[in-house]
Amino acid sequence: MNLTRREFVSASLAIGASSLVHLPALAFTQSKMTIQQVMDMILKSVPGAPFSQTVDTIKSGDPTQPVTGIVTTMFATVDVIKKAASLKANFIIAHEPTFYNHTDSTDWIENDSVVKAKKELLNKNKIVVWRFHDYIHTMRPDGVLTGVLNSLGWQSYYNADNPSMINIPATTVREVVTLAKANLGISSLRVVGDLSQRCERVGLLPGAPGGRRQISFLQQEKPDLLLCGEVAEWETSEYIRDAHLLGQKRALIVLGHAFSEEPGMKWMASWLQPQVKNIVVTHVPSSEPFIWV
Amino acid sequence: MNLTRREFVSASLAIGASSLVHLPALAFTQSKMTIQQVMDMILKSVPGAPFSQTVDTIKSGDPTQPVTGIVTTMFATVDVIKKAASLKANFIIAHEPTFYNHTDSTDWIENDSVVKAKKELLNKNKIVVWRFHDYIHTMRPDGVLTGVLNSLGWQSYYNADNPSMINIPATTVREVVTLAKANLGISSLRVVGDLSQRCERVGLLPGAPGGRRQISFLQQEKPDLLLCGEVAEWETSEYIRDAHLLGQKRALIVLGHAFSEEPGMKWMASWLQPQVKNIVVTHVPSSEPFIWV
Repeated sequence: MNLTRREFVSASLAIGASSLVHLPALAFTQSKMTIQQVMDMILKSVPGAPFSQTVDTIKSGDPTQPVTGIVTTMFATVDVIKKAASLKANFIIAHEPTFYNHTDSTDWIENDSVVKAKKELLNKNKIVVWRFHDYIHTMRPDGVLTGVLNSLGWQSYYNADNPSMINIPATTVREVVTLAKANLGISSLRVVGDLSQRCERVGLLPGAPGGRRQISFLQQEKPDLLLCGEVAEWETSEYIRDAHLLGQKRALIVLGHAFSEEPGMKWMASWLQPQVKNIVVTHVPSSEPFIWV
Repeated sequence: MNLTRREFVSASLAIGASSLVHLPALAFTQSKMTIQQVMDMILKSVPGAPFSQTVDTIKSGDPTQPVTGIVTTMFATVDVIKKAASLKANFIIAHEPTFYNHTDSTDWIENDSVVKAKKELLNKNKIVVWRFHDYIHTMRPDGVLTGVLNSLGWQSYYNADNPSMINIPATTVREVVTLAKANLGISSLRVVGDLSQRCERVGLLPGAPGGRRQISFLQQEKPDLLLCGEVAEWETSEYIRDAHLLGQKRALIVLGHAFSEEPGMKWMASWLQPQVKNIVVTHVPSSEPFIWV
């Protein structure tokens, strides 16, 4: 039984005063929970976890320390780390790398001033950063997809047999752009194709799964619109450009990598909170770093 | 001796009427030049060419046919192919892939409707597409860099000892954005950092050489501004975001992959024209496929 903190208090009150004597002891136990114990608990919801091969490793800090607060985010940026410290949270769960490459290897930039300063900031605040990428995508439904569908108000269109394809009531690419900007907090984005094109078979591939996966998906499912996080500009965007020039009804919305998956980490905070009860879980959006000029 | 067509005519006239009888024969010889002969001639200017391992292979058509006209471009899009056909040009030299992946392999999408239609369009017009990526970057100076420096009016800042780093008169990131948009034909682009930041040590990495190369370069050269074509959004843009948040004077302009290298293929047309004399070389910009909303 997973209860939110509010539900937990209500349930306790319903049970009656006699049960309340147990609350301080429970709260004490909870506050002694270590970061590793939180991680182990989370992994019980991931089929096949823990994985022997994964990028979802600890990037900084000591997970045997008691958890004081949890932050979920897309990128553990310098700002997100400072925000976590101000929240007295010593555990950041980040979907993407901390040190600017997929495996977070720093041997090639060990003496770099940015890497060194970021490590010092993390150490000073005794913050553990754990990447949660492969695991959240392995959850069923994929936690990122759940978050994106929830944020877009499209959760009723989810199809467990083909999660990346949904059918929406017929609309236009322009209308989907308007919805995505409003609901995902996006100021600017890029489109390939025709904004006035009708669409109802929509592909959803948040993040950057790579051109081959995106294009194979396009070939197989033939969505009239694909929403993705990021493209390599010699791959999927050129494929859609040519498809459109050849007269096919195909369009692409490039949401931005961070915006396309942030709802997943927001969803994770709401999913995790009831499981850690008196430990506060806060979603801190890292947004994207770009100024669009 | 490389002459433009105009110079060729002038030189002939200077030699006098007696020489003119040879012109038709020469013109005939030139028009019989095959595409393969043009390729072989071009490769004489590339140190170490031909390479045994390269993506710069023929992507379509028969190079033994006589060349009727040449088009240089970034991407041999459906529109660029149609434009070449309308120009009676049967040889497209493209910097980037034709079939949406770095090696142009199509075994995984052989029956794809876009790939099939594009191949049919090329075959119908008997057009040879040759990729010219590794070779132009191997020229000294790198032909793409030459084109970019020329287009930006920065050719006098070229430093053969460290070609990707230039020193410009102190200015602001905003001023460089304005210059790049005006001179490279860019409507919109993305910046990381502070538009009002002063800059004079500028890094130039057109295209998408990858995050490790970009970040290693940033670590080694410490430019206060990097101009690049494209980033993976979990790599270089996050590095610059953190550097900026840590108080370092670092900024990034993401020009867009196509816009960042198009000047190289424009330069190539002007470089190639005098060498093929009566074969018309036309640069057809493929631009980028994005609508910025």
